[in-house]
Amino acid sequence: MTASGAAVQVRALVFDVFGTVVDWRSSVVAEVRALGWPVEPAAFADAWRAGYVPAMQAVRDGRLPWMHIDALHRRILDGLLAERGLAPPEAEVAELNRVWHRLAPWPDSVTGLQRLKQRFPVCSLSNGNVSLLLDMARHARLPWDTIFSAELFGHYKPDPEVYLGAARLLDLPPEQVLMVAAHPSDLRAAAACGLKTAYVPRPLERGPGGAMEPWTPGEFDVVAEDFVALAAALGA
Amino acid sequence: MTASGAAVQVRALVFDVFGTVVDWRSSVVAEVRALGWPVEPAAFADAWRAGYVPAMQAVRDGRLPWMHIDALHRRILDGLLAERGLAPPEAEVAELNRVWHRLAPWPDSVTGLQRLKQRFPVCSLSNGNVSLLLDMARHARLPWDTIFSAELFGHYKPDPEVYLGAARLLDLPPEQVLMVAAHPSDLRAAAACGLKTAYVPRPLERGPGGAMEPWTPGEFDVVAEDFVALAAALGA
Repeated sequence: MTASGAAVQVRALVFDVFGTVVDWRSSVVAEVRALGWPVEPAAFADAWRAGYVPAMQAVRDGRLPWMHIDALHRRILDGLLAERGLAPPEAEVAELNRVWHRLAPWPDSVTGLQRLKQRFPVCSLSNGNVSLLLDMARHARLPWDTIFSAELFGHYKPDPEVYLGAARLLDLPPEQVLMVAAHPSDLRAAAACGLKTAYVPRPLERGPGGAMEPWTPGEFDVVAEDFVALAAALGA
Repeated sequence: MTASGAAVQVRALVFDVFGTVVDWRSSVVAEVRALGWPVEPAAFADAWRAGYVPAMQAVRDGRLPWMHIDALHRRILDGLLAERGLAPPEAEVAELNRVWHRLAPWPDSVTGLQRLKQRFPVCSLSNGNVSLLLDMARHARLPWDTIFSAELFGHYKPDPEVYLGAARLLDLPPEQVLMVAAHPSDLRAAAACGLKTAYVPRPLERGPGGAMEPWTPGEFDVVAEDFVALAAALGA
């Protein structure tokens, strides 16, 4: 399908957030560095993020009860500190845990979303909890029409309940919803539910030279280098 | 509690929508009139709205399965047409049923919400379904930070699940959430859940001279004549 073909059918856009809309790594590294803890900030940030998918997986397969991302982030953070024999003041740990509420957007994110919003509803569809996404949107001026979160569905992506739940709340058939993400695995799960897909690679998500998930040209409905290019591709 | 006292503690605002933010009656009357059906437009609009609370009550007490407001509106509309022996084309009926997606705001709503949003997250908390509220926000330029709807909780106001569900998603204790409404009954149900309350009377909701619910001075935390006055009362 061409970009223009997708534009004809699509009636709403939903966005992955961590890595796709915001640059989690730079923000987390900067706050870790500012705390002055005896850790290497980039490695610490990467280790924190590396705990994220396994923690959600534990919820997805029932080893952990449902808990939101703030709680999972704190659980991972406490583990990292314990491994390193560190016990910073509780106020510092609690405040760092909220760094995910104030991540910085990629340079094109706000401009691109504003332009896309002129034509389509633009909604988050993130594993982040609602209050996290709301704080982030206010901090980064992300102009969401509304916030969709895994928390609304009691399931984490890539569970189908999340993608289908967003389509249901939008009152649209899945094929009229375009999932935008920097992660091929997220897009493949969306496509399996019938959603259209837009891949926006973010080569700096894991830092210069960081690994990116492999993908195959042609497997997504739209590929755009950033949100401004996505707006152009969708005629917005 | 004084307005300033409430402002100190409140960390998010949630708004009733039909009647509080938007003037449903003028919008519905105008669209009914434009259709040219053999009905008296104002009486028809009032009858349509009068079916709303009983229809939600039937869902609340289990006589009807969960269905969203678009479906309830259509059910009531079909009943009104049948009572009058009318059978307009399906396309006209379907389009009129969506009038609730494009209601006009009160003159102060957008300005007031924009000002309030500078200081507080502003969120809908309506019995309207998500897609209805999303369409309305885009149509009327309501700057919600996010849309909360009864649909997210599978319960209609005044069920406590709705008020407590919003506080949970905001990750705030109920007493840090301010419910804004033109309807004392909605505010009383919110207060029973621990939320703070702001009463904004809308004397024209049911037309000139229309009935308003009785209330007692002092029973709500804040009373303001419109959203701009509410912003001033809350220091926004």
